[in-house]
Amino acid sequence: MEKQELIDCHERIKPYIHNTPVLTSRLLNAMVGAQLFFKCENFQRMGAFKMRGAANAILQLPKEAREKGVVTHSSGNFAQALSLAAKSLGVPAYIVMPSSAPNVKKEAVRGYGGEVIECEPTLEAREQESEKIQQEKGAIFLHPSNDNEVILGQGTACKELLEDYPDLDAVFAPVGGGGLIAGTALSAYYFGTNCEVFGGEPFEVDDAYRSLQSGQIETNTTTNTIADGLKTQLGDKNFPIIQKHVKRIIRVTEDEIVEAMRLLWERLKIVCEPSCAVAFAAVIKEKEKFTNQKVGIIISGGNVDLGNLPF
Amino acid sequence: MEKQELIDCHERIKPYIHNTPVLTSRLLNAMVGAQLFFKCENFQRMGAFKMRGAANAILQLPKEAREKGVVTHSSGNFAQALSLAAKSLGVPAYIVMPSSAPNVKKEAVRGYGGEVIECEPTLEAREQESEKIQQEKGAIFLHPSNDNEVILGQGTACKELLEDYPDLDAVFAPVGGGGLIAGTALSAYYFGTNCEVFGGEPFEVDDAYRSLQSGQIETNTTTNTIADGLKTQLGDKNFPIIQKHVKRIIRVTEDEIVEAMRLLWERLKIVCEPSCAVAFAAVIKEKEKFTNQKVGIIISGGNVDLGNLPF
Repeated sequence: MEKQELIDCHERIKPYIHNTPVLTSRLLNAMVGAQLFFKCENFQRMGAFKMRGAANAILQLPKEAREKGVVTHSSGNFAQALSLAAKSLGVPAYIVMPSSAPNVKKEAVRGYGGEVIECEPTLEAREQESEKIQQEKGAIFLHPSNDNEVILGQGTACKELLEDYPDLDAVFAPVGGGGLIAGTALSAYYFGTNCEVFGGEPFEVDDAYRSLQSGQIETNTTTNTIADGLKTQLGDKNFPIIQKHVKRIIRVTEDEIVEAMRLLWERLKIVCEPSCAVAFAAVIKEKEKFTNQKVGIIISGGNVDLGNLPF
Repeated sequence: MEKQELIDCHERIKPYIHNTPVLTSRLLNAMVGAQLFFKCENFQRMGAFKMRGAANAILQLPKEAREKGVVTHSSGNFAQALSLAAKSLGVPAYIVMPSSAPNVKKEAVRGYGGEVIECEPTLEAREQESEKIQQEKGAIFLHPSNDNEVILGQGTACKELLEDYPDLDAVFAPVGGGGLIAGTALSAYYFGTNCEVFGGEPFEVDDAYRSLQSGQIETNTTTNTIADGLKTQLGDKNFPIIQKHVKRIIRVTEDEIVEAMRLLWERLKIVCEPSCAVAFAAVIKEKEKFTNQKVGIIISGGNVDLGNLPF
């Protein structure tokens, strides 16, 4: 994808997103030995960077397609993002969710104006159900991460970060489905000055790490991680971008994730998801390699269940 | 106190404090029916507005006095604020704390460079011990809230808020010792345009509410509230300012505090103390009186024990 595409995407979605604040902490800087810049997408509309990609994907649909609506299957942040972005643009949004999903997540989607369609909690049922909606309603299927327009949208968070701090030496992002890290890597490549991009990934779902090793997309057999936003699978659209533009993926343990999350909550005073802590844990893990550097970290989202915290 | 004193105070402390960000939320606006502007002093250095007053109080001491140091008795945010402000200015800080105070609070003070002096957990012992340090070290005693320089310092948070949003109709702050609400009221009077100031206070420690009713400083017999920052007592320096410039104090229940705190964490995605939630709970409680108004809320601090949350 080209630089101009990222620029156009950013202009296109600006009316629908926040340019989120960047926080810093002297204590965390001292602890890591680097200058850290936290891009707080937990303060994004609906609470996560997913709003960027969802808005861009809908805006890139032709007018006739928009009228018929969009459909996705997700029980995470993309479900809410697509619902809110669609509502902002007067587009119907159909969200296929497993019947086993927590009620609070279904209510959140409905609160943003999405129509929830429940299905059996299997991947097959989810795909069947969304296929059905595409046929019945003529709605367009949008994938949460393996979609070029989504990748461009997610990349605008790093673009904004580099507009504020053009001389970052490195940017860290968590790796789940790969949309955020791919978009981040594109922005660092086009808008940074020798800015290297690193991914953080839990050992428990290290498909991206193994994919980079083997040169082909690997899958996870278990997904036993607290970072629930990162359980998804790399795709064939974002993997080549990651191969080309991501310097390295650093894996972290569950204990390291929780410890990094506690630091973010206690020191930055922000509510953020375990997924964000994965990127920060990766920085801490290899901190001696970034001494005195300027390091950006994408804080991906803040939608957590306060009744189920790891502290 | 005069307008120019607030202006001078702000210029004086600027190198030692952050101009903290103001957050907004469409969802909370819709819920309250007003435009809300949250001044996030939880992002202040050391995590609370107390840094402002502590910095100003030390900066106003003559040079000779600074060399001998400052002393206070506190186990809360003022202890940390005075330690950090003193350290930033190369001044010794002696902090008298009850031996029963949690180790984490003593460590936080030491982390900011303060010297902890432990005493028996009674007010008498605290006063005796800090009296002793004044005599032995020649250190100057600084009160956490009942001090004109502290009041001016705390007022700069509202001054900054009004610089960003000059046409606020109302500003809410929590009421504890009275330093924040008094400073806020002065700033609203001098820098606002018909901006009224309201206090939020827990029913369980409603000394300020009762003091305004009776016209004299009342005391609390119990302090059974989750808002641990508000258990302190009004003083003779801030009470007259509150009488003159605070429109009204609104009392809230413990349940209302926890509910407001949950909304701040879930919707604004910030880690903040129960004390901040008291001010927001007061807004919610009387929301119909503020319909379509522009309302500022001072989020006073973010130093909470993550292992002991009310959710």
